[in-house]
Amino acid sequence: VKKLMFKVVDNAKSAKKLGQEDPRRIVHSLKVGFTITLVSLFYYFEPKFHYEGFGVSAMWAVLTVIVVFEFTVGATLGRAINRGIATFLGASLAGGVHRLACFSGSKTLEPILLGIFLFSIAAIVSYLRFLPKLKARYDYGVLIFILTFSLVSVSGYHDKQVLEIAHTRLSTILIGCAAALVVCIFICPVWAGEELHNKISSNLEKLGSFLEVFGTEYLNTAHGADSEQKGSDLQGYKSVLNSKSSEEVLANFAKWEPRHGKFRYRHPWAQYLEIGGTARDCAYRIHALNAYLNYETQIEQEIRTRIQEPCMKVSTECGHVLKALSLAMKTMTYPLTIMVHIDNAKLAAENLKTLLHTNSSWEDINFSAVIPLATVASLLIDIVSYTIKMVESFDQ
Amino acid sequence: VKKLMFKVVDNAKSAKKLGQEDPRRIVHSLKVGFTITLVSLFYYFEPKFHYEGFGVSAMWAVLTVIVVFEFTVGATLGRAINRGIATFLGASLAGGVHRLACFSGSKTLEPILLGIFLFSIAAIVSYLRFLPKLKARYDYGVLIFILTFSLVSVSGYHDKQVLEIAHTRLSTILIGCAAALVVCIFICPVWAGEELHNKISSNLEKLGSFLEVFGTEYLNTAHGADSEQKGSDLQGYKSVLNSKSSEEVLANFAKWEPRHGKFRYRHPWAQYLEIGGTARDCAYRIHALNAYLNYETQIEQEIRTRIQEPCMKVSTECGHVLKALSLAMKTMTYPLTIMVHIDNAKLAAENLKTLLHTNSSWEDINFSAVIPLATVASLLIDIVSYTIKMVESFDQ
Repeated sequence: VKKLMFKVVDNAKSAKKLGQEDPRRIVHSLKVGFTITLVSLFYYFEPKFHYEGFGVSAMWAVLTVIVVFEFTVGATLGRAINRGIATFLGASLAGGVHRLACFSGSKTLEPILLGIFLFSIAAIVSYLRFLPKLKARYDYGVLIFILTFSLVSVSGYHDKQVLEIAHTRLSTILIGCAAALVVCIFICPVWAGEELHNKISSNLEKLGSFLEVFGTEYLNTAHGADSEQKGSDLQGYKSVLNSKSSEEVLANFAKWEPRHGKFRYRHPWAQYLEIGGTARDCAYRIHALNAYLNYETQIEQEIRTRIQEPCMKVSTECGHVLKALSLAMKTMTYPLTIMVHIDNAKLAAENLKTLLHTNSSWEDINFSAVIPLATVASLLIDIVSYTIKMVESFDQ
Repeated sequence: VKKLMFKVVDNAKSAKKLGQEDPRRIVHSLKVGFTITLVSLFYYFEPKFHYEGFGVSAMWAVLTVIVVFEFTVGATLGRAINRGIATFLGASLAGGVHRLACFSGSKTLEPILLGIFLFSIAAIVSYLRFLPKLKARYDYGVLIFILTFSLVSVSGYHDKQVLEIAHTRLSTILIGCAAALVVCIFICPVWAGEELHNKISSNLEKLGSFLEVFGTEYLNTAHGADSEQKGSDLQGYKSVLNSKSSEEVLANFAKWEPRHGKFRYRHPWAQYLEIGGTARDCAYRIHALNAYLNYETQIEQEIRTRIQEPCMKVSTECGHVLKALSLAMKTMTYPLTIMVHIDNAKLAAENLKTLLHTNSSWEDINFSAVIPLATVASLLIDIVSYTIKMVESFDQ
């Protein structure tokens, strides 16, 4: 019992932390509760007004709200549009198939025909769900299409009022979608586009602060005191390594969103994915750099000082460029300082290259000790080129 | 019109390719169609038998099949169990709340109390959906819990037979789940555990063949003729870089699956994720190696030959180890040859290290030309340690 109590307290703590991390989560929960209660009131008052005679099917509106309401506006819009259109198409097709089956005239033949149609359409549509293009944006719609088609055509086994069923189903679903959308968009909306924007920009910042810290931490000989404090800065880049799928999901949601705040309707979301991809390539290099942080004590002071300055310069300048880029994204302005930092980084990389290519500077040195430094240097040169590529993507 | 036709033909081609790539997709679609038709027959015959008097709610069985039926057994089982338990809990809670509201006795107070309960429970449960632990495995269950609770308690606004509604809803859903599970498990099942197993093993093979080809391609001076043919082998590793999320999803599904084929019920799926993580770390290094494939023509013959043999040895031996490991996973046997390859790889890595640490071997050489080779060598040494780590994980 004590163990269970402990677990409950533990979970409660992590639940509290979730809310502190992002208070919009609490607002979202209240919004969902509010919308469900609102729509259920519709069901409560409905028999008093005899509004188009919905009956039990009014519950579909409640169901729709629960299923459609998501955290971001883009996700909610995507589901609502998918659900609305798919229900319409599914119901229409079921109506058409039912009429076709009625033509046969025979009482025994009719359900058999309906069954054959049901089987073949369900199988074909299930197969189409494997298409990657459909899966990314319309998977939910395709599911709802099969669902509506099956429900309406199955009910055709008995009732003859198939069209009426289809009609009430469609209108209750539209009411549910509308309620979910209005609350989602007009009460403290969370835009997927903005999330993506902030995510990419904070990823750039993470990479930038790694490079800035790396420039002083790894290459500066007088260190050790504040290394623990900076440890979190250095590990932040790791979340960038596996950011691909979440960025793609957000971009898919963002495509559904209308104009909002700083973003147009057809904001170039693909460009964001491109910058994100380059940032990931850069993060792979940084991941390799990170391995060399453990080598620091093994390198002799003499070699360190010789290569220190250009490496420091490259790392910090790259860090400055990425941080400036991140800030530029956040404020959506074009900062003039970024060009200065890029020129500095390019120059520093050139210096580093010439240093490595000058044989005279490397005579009489323990070769094995230079290798990690040389690797660090060439990784940094790579990072400069990726940084420039990101700035170019950003310009477009 | 021509453009549209072209697009349709294009999509049909890619749909055909999907089936050729993996014929189980076609089987899956047929299974879905079959199960839906089967359950709809239940609805068709139902009024003739008056089986427990389901009425319209028998359609819930059809709906359940469509929503629950997934490609892998694990995913289907997870959804079915989630749906079953969540429906039971939601319906019970709604029944309890309804009884509580009835205690008030007042006709006006009752719906207000129900509304307050609905709002607060919907808000709390929506909030809990953000908990990462719940989200990974029980997200669908939590959704269904809110859904059932809302539907049953909303219907309590009018009907007094709340318990009866809850009961029929539960039993129709159980019938739907059972039908989906029986077809999914007993007709050509696709096990998520097996998918994960094959995925990890084929990832290891991709890394292995990169290293094998790299050993001959990059380091062998007599090349160029068959480089195009091997290009696909070299790029295969890229899919490993972003494999994290799909592996985690499969592992979550696999945890639901009962004993099947070579796998126990509590097969150590976490171990697979660990091997997958190490394979990804290894792939990051290979990604860095890949960048040096472009340098090949710039290196002088002299330096090449000096470092060639140990690098070749390390790369090919690592490749052999990974391929042997992949084969060992596939056949689930412990091959004795793997130890020989590991020893070879370790020895080759040691040789490479001593070569790099011997100053005399690097005198009178253009320093800048050695750097890429030295980087390649140190990356290969890293890869050896990751390979050994993978073999150790596999042993457990």
